[in-house]
This record gives sequence, structure tokens and C-alpha cells, in this order.
Amino acid sequence: MPELRQNIITRHWVIIATERARRPHEFSRKEERRPLPHRVPNCPFCTGNEEKTPAETLRIPGDGNWRVRVFPNRFPALAAAGEIMRAHTGIKRAITGVGIHEVVVETPDHGQTLSSMSNTEVEQVIEAYLQRHKAALSNPIVEHVTIFKNHGAAAGTSLEHPHSQLIATPIIPSEVRERLENALRFYDDNGRCIFCFTLEEEAREDTRVVDENPHFLAFVPYAALSPYHLWIFPKRHCASFGCIGDEEKDALAQILRRSLVRLDKRLNNPDYNFVVRTAPKESETVRYYHWYITVVPRVSQTAGFELGSGMFINTSLPEESARFLADVKVD
Amino acid sequence: MPELRQNIITRHWVIIATERARRPHEFSRKEERRPLPHRVPNCPFCTGNEEKTPAETLRIPGDGNWRVRVFPNRFPALAAAGEIMRAHTGIKRAITGVGIHEVVVETPDHGQTLSSMSNTEVEQVIEAYLQRHKAALSNPIVEHVTIFKNHGAAAGTSLEHPHSQLIATPIIPSEVRERLENALRFYDDNGRCIFCFTLEEEAREDTRVVDENPHFLAFVPYAALSPYHLWIFPKRHCASFGCIGDEEKDALAQILRRSLVRLDKRLNNPDYNFVVRTAPKESETVRYYHWYITVVPRVSQTAGFELGSGMFINTSLPEESARFLADVKVD
Repeated sequence: MPELRQNIITRHWVIIATERARRPHEFSRKEERRPLPHRVPNCPFCTGNEEKTPAETLRIPGDGNWRVRVFPNRFPALAAAGEIMRAHTGIKRAITGVGIHEVVVETPDHGQTLSSMSNTEVEQVIEAYLQRHKAALSNPIVEHVTIFKNHGAAAGTSLEHPHSQLIATPIIPSEVRERLENALRFYDDNGRCIFCFTLEEEAREDTRVVDENPHFLAFVPYAALSPYHLWIFPKRHCASFGCIGDEEKDALAQILRRSLVRLDKRLNNPDYNFVVRTAPKESETVRYYHWYITVVPRVSQTAGFELGSGMFINTSLPEESARFLADVKVD
Repeated sequence: MPELRQNIITRHWVIIATERARRPHEFSRKEERRPLPHRVPNCPFCTGNEEKTPAETLRIPGDGNWRVRVFPNRFPALAAAGEIMRAHTGIKRAITGVGIHEVVVETPDHGQTLSSMSNTEVEQVIEAYLQRHKAALSNPIVEHVTIFKNHGAAAGTSLEHPHSQLIATPIIPSEVRERLENALRFYDDNGRCIFCFTLEEEAREDTRVVDENPHFLAFVPYAALSPYHLWIFPKRHCASFGCIGDEEKDALAQILRRSLVRLDKRLNNPDYNFVVRTAPKESETVRYYHWYITVVPRVSQTAGFELGSGMFINTSLPEESARFLADVKVD
């Protein structure tokens, strides 16, 4: 019998479709991913081509050169300069598209991935996220910051050199607002953070946990929207990604890298997205919200039902997916 | 300068990314779609293979045989029989997965599509939707019905024989509830249906209208989430798809077929989804909600930003897309 499960944080219902369930290995990428060279002459993110990108907003130095570079996107979704103007007539509600859109080049090596990097190297990427997150929040027009990675064509990227992005918007997206409201209501009703509660329950039940270290827990959510969907929660309550300390940064690099290694090994290097979900600027210190990272391997396709109902059909069992990932041997 | 636009019905914000805008023809499908034969011997939906499907719940007869067949999905997302049981402990909120999942075979001809059918043939598909929608609502466990079509691999289907699906759930999805609440608030504040208001404004402004007949208006929404996203609104207010009459059925067949022809001609037979969005059972007669059809060609890829913020980046200008589609000559 299939089961409908509701995620208490997002309020999304998902159908865990046991009748159409597939075995874990069936979600593996079919084609082999060809190995990439260390350097591609015409890649704008490779060493030697630094002048092809806009001016850097951050450089983390490495052996003799750089390790991580950040600069404005050459084709930004939002303009860097301009005045915020709102127009509202009839059905039309618009704001000038001012904000920040940056690219984080994660490594000078075209052929590396976050899962093949060392812990220290991943930590430097996270350091870049943190510094640029802070810088974005200091911009008075910014209300909300999203840091994300698109890995592979199915995850929406065309550039193969490892990179992530930051988009800062002059508004709080409606979906983010809905999550805040839901979390606030839970806090009012239960006197605690809904994320801290989830963390505690996942650790206690221990049927969907994939990895853990002193500062983070990685698990497949009880109502995972898609196969191998992963959440990485910090154990210490904080609404903002910006609040993590040095020890947590190291632990985050470790659990993120190890999670990606698990996906690579089990699903044959799948395309994936990950997102740092953090509170909007005005809610950085609230007791009811909690930052986290969501990782979504692109191993299934959403269709008309998802589009029309906002519900998802997941053809894998979260407990089984978690076990399959947890069983991988990783360094 | 890019522009942020909010859809007042869904409350979603979208970035109309003028800096990364592509010309209309750039969204065309690259590969030619190979023509399909009229009959495929091992296709379970082709004539002669009727015994390969579960027992019919509806058959609309055609010349000497059938024209449209409906039957339960062989691999249903929800079980047809069983008791609704709710469990709620800790973070776990679950319901037994009972509901309805049916397949609507739109034609006996494997190689036909809704855009190559006659008006009468499309009308028979809509007649099947209507009858099965009504039947689903009469089931006491059903709270909400979604009718949808996945056309092509990128839209989430593996079976190429033309078909649509109906899924009826024992709950009202949270996204549907949010839209109802937003529409109700608009009604309370403005004394009218937000959809009727949108319809009137779109017709009056006439910059995003793609097609129109006495009963329906097809337009690209002001804050379209993706390129060539289309909405088909009935002009007469009704919350439920179930309320349309014979004349409207004919007009709907016409505008739907013509819209799909436009997409085929302009975007080279793209994969697409469409969904009949209708009120939940308990809200079938409310004054503040309005059924409609949404059509989404799969010509762009969502990525980490969409996943993490709930906002979308649209690299086409809705007004330009609408003009491009409206300019097609169709019968």
C-alpha cells in the first residue's frame, strides 16, 4: 500500500509510491561520465583565463595561484546597480530587477569536483560562501540570499568547470515566507524550533540518517520529495548560515564532501543541485528558523501531477535510500 | 534592466531576465521528432491490445471500435481500495495511500497527437475527463482531483502512445490550499474573483493574449514562470471544471488544440505538460476560485536557484512569447 507523507517543515505532501518502487541501483546514471581534463584552453573559469571574467569580489589564494575565485556573473539574472522601484497596477506587480548574482569558481582544476577535493579545499569553498553571504547581506537593497550549485546538464548548468552561484534578491520569495510562517506557528504552538525538533527525532529514530559528525546530521527527510534527496542540518540552532564558526566550517566541509561521495559511488556520479537555505536578512536571529543544506540528485523527472498539485511522487522508500547511502565506505 | 514580477494568483515571484534573454526561436526543440506509426504491436494502448490493460472505467466509441478509453493505471501511485488511516507521531504525519489513478488513452492511433486531432476528437477526450472527474468526486474518500498530461520524455512520460492521467487524492495538497486562501483573501478585500479580474485585465490590456473564442481566453501569464507557459481561462466564472456545458466543451477543445498547434509550429513539437487546475471537492461552488488549464512546454531547465528560493528565472519576455505564438496561422 502506498503512503502519503507530509513534511512538517515544508507542509508538502509526497506519495511514497511503493507499487511503482524501484530498487536503489535503478536510479544510477546510465552513461559513464567522461573524465575531464585539468585545464581547458577556452574555459573562462580555468587558470590563465582570469581576464575573461568580470573583476573578482573575492580570491582565496592557493599554492602559487588562487584556490577559489568569486566574481559577478557575466549574464546576471539581476542587475548590480539601479534603484528599487515598485509598480502595482491592476494585475501587474513588479520591482526593478536589482540584486546580486555572483559565480564562485570552486577550484582552478577543471576536472576536479567537490567530491574529489580534500576537506580543506571544500572548506575554502564554504569560506567563500560565508564571506560573500555576509557581503551580500550588508548591501541595503538585499532582503534574501540563495547560494546554490548546479552540477551537470540535468541540474541546469552548461559550464562544466566546478562552480556555484549566489543570488541576492530585493524581496523575500513567497515560498521562503511560507516556510517562515509555518516555522513561527510551530514555535508558538510548541515552544521550540521545528528544525531542532526534526533533528532530534531523526537522530533518535535513526532510520533515515546517512552521516553524522559532532556538528551536523545528514539524513533523507521522512517525506523526501525525490529519490536520494538529502538534508544536512547543523546541530546548533541558528537561523542564519552566517553564524557558523571555524570548527563547524570544517565539519560542514566534511559532511558535504562525504555526502557527495556517497551519491557519486551509489548513483554513478549523478547530476545534482544543492542549496544553502538560510533565513532572510530580517530574520537572521530568530528562534524559530534554522539554516540547512538541501541536496537533490537529479535522478527522476517531475511531471504534470507535481506541476498541478504541488505534491510529489517518490518511487523510492526514504529509509531504504538512507541505508543504501549510509552503507558506502567513505574517507 | 531585469524585472521581478509577481503573479497575483500564485504569489510566485519570477525574474524576467532580460540580460540573458533568448530570441523566441532559440527555445525550439533541436532534434526532429521522428514520426510514429499508427499502431505498435507491443504498445498496451494500441488497438488489439485492450486485454493488456486493466478493465475499462469508460469507453467512448468511435467508428467500428473505440475512440477514447479510460482504465486504472497498472502501476498506480495510489491504491484503489483500502481504508484511510492517519498516523501522527513526532515528525511523522502519514495517511494510507488510497485514491484513484487512471489513464485516459486519447486515441487508438499511436501516431496521433492532440494537436493533429480534429476538434471533435479532442472534445471526446475532454468529455472523458469530465465524466471521470465527476466519478472521482463521487468517491467519498476523494478530496481533490488532478487531470494532467505528460507529453514526451522531458515532461516525464515513457509511454509514447497519446494519453493523459487522473489522480484523485484523499487530501487537499498544501499548494492548492495556499492558492485557495490567497484567492479567498482577494475576494474578501476586493469583492470579486481574482481569476475573473485577471481575465478582464488580460483581455483589456491585450499584450499577452494568444487566442480567444466566445468561452475561453488563452494567454501567457504576466509573471510566466517559464518560456511559453500558457494559461487557458474559461470566461464564465466557475470553481469546478465539472461545471462546463456542451458549448464550452467544444470551445475548450478548440482553444486547447489550437494552443498545442501553436507550440508545435513555433517550438518544433516540444515536450510539454498540461494540467486541469480545479477546485477541491469541498470548494466546487465557491465564488472566489476559478478552474483553468495550465500548459507548460519543457523548453528550459529549473536549477538550484528555483529549488532553493521558489522563485523562477524566465529568460523570455511574456509579451514577446505571446506575440510569437499568436502570430501562428492555425485552423
